[in-house]
Amino acid sequence: MSRHPFDWIDARAEQRARAGLVRTLRPRPAESPLLDLASNDYLGLARHPEVTRAGADACLRWGAGSTGSRLVTGSTELHAELEAELAGFCGFEAALVLASGYAANLAAVTALTGFGTLIVSDSGNHASLIDGCRLSRAVTEVVPHTDPEAVRKALDGHDGPAVVITDSVFSVDGDAAPLTELATACRRYGAALLVDDAHGLGVLGDGGRGAASAAGLAGAPDVVCTATLSKSLGSQGGVVLGPARVIEHLVNCARTFIFDTGLAPAAAGAAMGALRLLRREPERAARGRAVARELYERLTTAGLDSVAPDACVVSVRAPSAEAAVRWAADCRAAGLAVGCFRPPSVPDRISRLRLTARADLTDQQIADAARVIVTTAPRG
Amino acid sequence: MSRHPFDWIDARAEQRARAGLVRTLRPRPAESPLLDLASNDYLGLARHPEVTRAGADACLRWGAGSTGSRLVTGSTELHAELEAELAGFCGFEAALVLASGYAANLAAVTALTGFGTLIVSDSGNHASLIDGCRLSRAVTEVVPHTDPEAVRKALDGHDGPAVVITDSVFSVDGDAAPLTELATACRRYGAALLVDDAHGLGVLGDGGRGAASAAGLAGAPDVVCTATLSKSLGSQGGVVLGPARVIEHLVNCARTFIFDTGLAPAAAGAAMGALRLLRREPERAARGRAVARELYERLTTAGLDSVAPDACVVSVRAPSAEAAVRWAADCRAAGLAVGCFRPPSVPDRISRLRLTARADLTDQQIADAARVIVTTAPRG
Ligand SMILES: Cc1ncc(COP(=O)(O)O)c(C=O)c1O
Ligand SMILES: Cc1ncc(COP(=O)(O)O)c(C=O)c1O
Repeated sequence: MSRHPFDWIDARAEQRARAGLVRTLRPRPAESPLLDLASNDYLGLARHPEVTRAGADACLRWGAGSTGSRLVTGSTELHAELEAELAGFCGFEAALVLASGYAANLAAVTALTGFGTLIVSDSGNHASLIDGCRLSRAVTEVVPHTDPEAVRKALDGHDGPAVVITDSVFSVDGDAAPLTELATACRRYGAALLVDDAHGLGVLGDGGRGAASAAGLAGAPDVVCTATLSKSLGSQGGVVLGPARVIEHLVNCARTFIFDTGLAPAAAGAAMGALRLLRREPERAARGRAVARELYERLTTAGLDSVAPDACVVSVRAPSAEAAVRWAADCRAAGLAVGCFRPPSVPDRISRLRLTARADLTDQQIADAARVIVTTAPRG
Repeated sequence: MSRHPFDWIDARAEQRARAGLVRTLRPRPAESPLLDLASNDYLGLARHPEVTRAGADACLRWGAGSTGSRLVTGSTELHAELEAELAGFCGFEAALVLASGYAANLAAVTALTGFGTLIVSDSGNHASLIDGCRLSRAVTEVVPHTDPEAVRKALDGHDGPAVVITDSVFSVDGDAAPLTELATACRRYGAALLVDDAHGLGVLGDGGRGAASAAGLAGAPDVVCTATLSKSLGSQGGVVLGPARVIEHLVNCARTFIFDTGLAPAAAGAAMGALRLLRREPERAARGRAVARELYERLTTAGLDSVAPDACVVSVRAPSAEAAVRWAADCRAAGLAVGCFRPPSVPDRISRLRLTARADLTDQQIADAARVIVTTAPRG
């Protein structure tokens, strides 16, 4: 036993430093001179005056915090209104708003599974879904990425309740899950389908109604979606969408709902503002997807290794973690903020630049961004 | 296997109904006619104009959402400022702000433990600490409530790294952990001490600096505190406080930090506003504790079964879950909002009313509240 209980932390820090995997926070100013291709603000709504005004007004009217669990004092009429709006917009019977998308995933996965349940989970699923599986009493079988045949096989070997869990759009590469085939497999075996639409809401489907809507699965009695209010909607918070009985079950059983303070009114109000805007300007969703394709075309034409984008995320592979870090730094020096994903944030240990194709980028900004990324690319 | 994957939910709903344990959401209006003794707004700051103004201004200036992980675009200078302020106020070397107190607890517990670690966890600990233990690769030994001797025994039998985990003030009964004895035991065995100060920050210690400060443990190299911004500070969010190397470790390793969107600027701004106010009006903390004692005196004098409060939570036991629900409803009919805790939210399965002694209650309001609670109390 070490003399001091935290001495082991220094050894871990040294390992990270040697591997070139140290992460540091770089707080940004309110007005950054950089062109942002790093955030998840897919529709450019986080700083839209209508959205920030709605958030500010909700804070002034309802208070800075919700003051308690949603089951005690943390439910306001604003939360109920937002839930009705989200359910209506996405085409589900009911919705439940939580403090974050992470909390929504923990809630959905744990409350919909138990002893004897088989969870079939895509190997590329988000950390919050993985943590949900770990918290669950179920047995989890991790299947290869976007492989409906593997899902079928897993379900075929199991006798009892089963839930198939997948991101709709995978956050690392921006590729989409084969939702139609997954739903078919689920129905054949009586399994439920749980889809994390964090990167699909606001981007996929008619007017941004999300991946389930795009796949004709919205409102299906055996499908549950989760999503976050922190990406396309430019705010904070999470939501579970599904049949009313599922939502009622979560209210009664989901620990990250029951034992967590309700979402702050400002975040709920801003998300409402974003949804209203999206209903009025439904073309934002399609524009986001078009920006992504344009960026992808330019990068692959220049010989970079990228995956055809299904939503607003474009990823470009780098030869190593060090190269990715240097590449991102060079982009930054040229005025462009890009995401840099390295182990352990990438399940396949392939480092990448992760680019956000925001709907509010101009054609000129797209061309400039592509030029910077191409000219700073590592040789090899 | 059931034909439909969610049919089992109906059976669970029926069980709940038969047991009288159905939970439903009751959204509140912006201006409630009820006197609030149910929220966790211990200092009455959630709707304080200075705090809501600070939240609204932050939303307008920094955006409705933080737009990404704190490691990508989600860190603003506002987050950094809040972290410096929280660390300074509570007396720790460094601080890390997360999207919720729940996320902060999952982060701290999982990142500070691993294979071979022994976690010694109080049986009354909050759900988020318990979930942290479940997510951890460590072995968890649950010890009887507030029992330092049991902690010593657990540590004595273990050879290797250990972390003792406890709430500072337990949310159900409002009783405090024996932090001084726990720290002594930890030091004797080279264990770390992790304290969840959700109900202590803003209430305990000089000017509300929290439980660690009150126990002379703030800034100790072997102590880590978590807290929430959603109770005394009237906002949303969570924080981990500790030595700089621990905070750096969390930045690099804590999944609910790395893979979660940063706290919304409005919530960070409101928490800053609340901290500024608390620095200027430090008497709010002591007033909260005095209100709790006054309420406790009145209730026990009238023969009710309550636990001497160490902070701002006063709990009163009810003979059954049904009686507790009826009691809370009768209070509500008389104009008083009180919390009602029933299984599964109470580890010992004893149902209670949970009362919040807000610092901004007047003496008249305390007297009125006590009268209502006493006159509506179940006989027996
Ligand atoms: C696929 C996916 N699911 C869930 C989340 C968590 O959502 P939130 O950040 O709102 O907690 C994220 C990102 O943060 C994500 O990328
Ligand atoms: C003791 C304790 N820890 C942690 C939390 C979680 O904090 P938050 O609601 O900010 O997620 C709570 C209450 O919600 C709590 O009572």
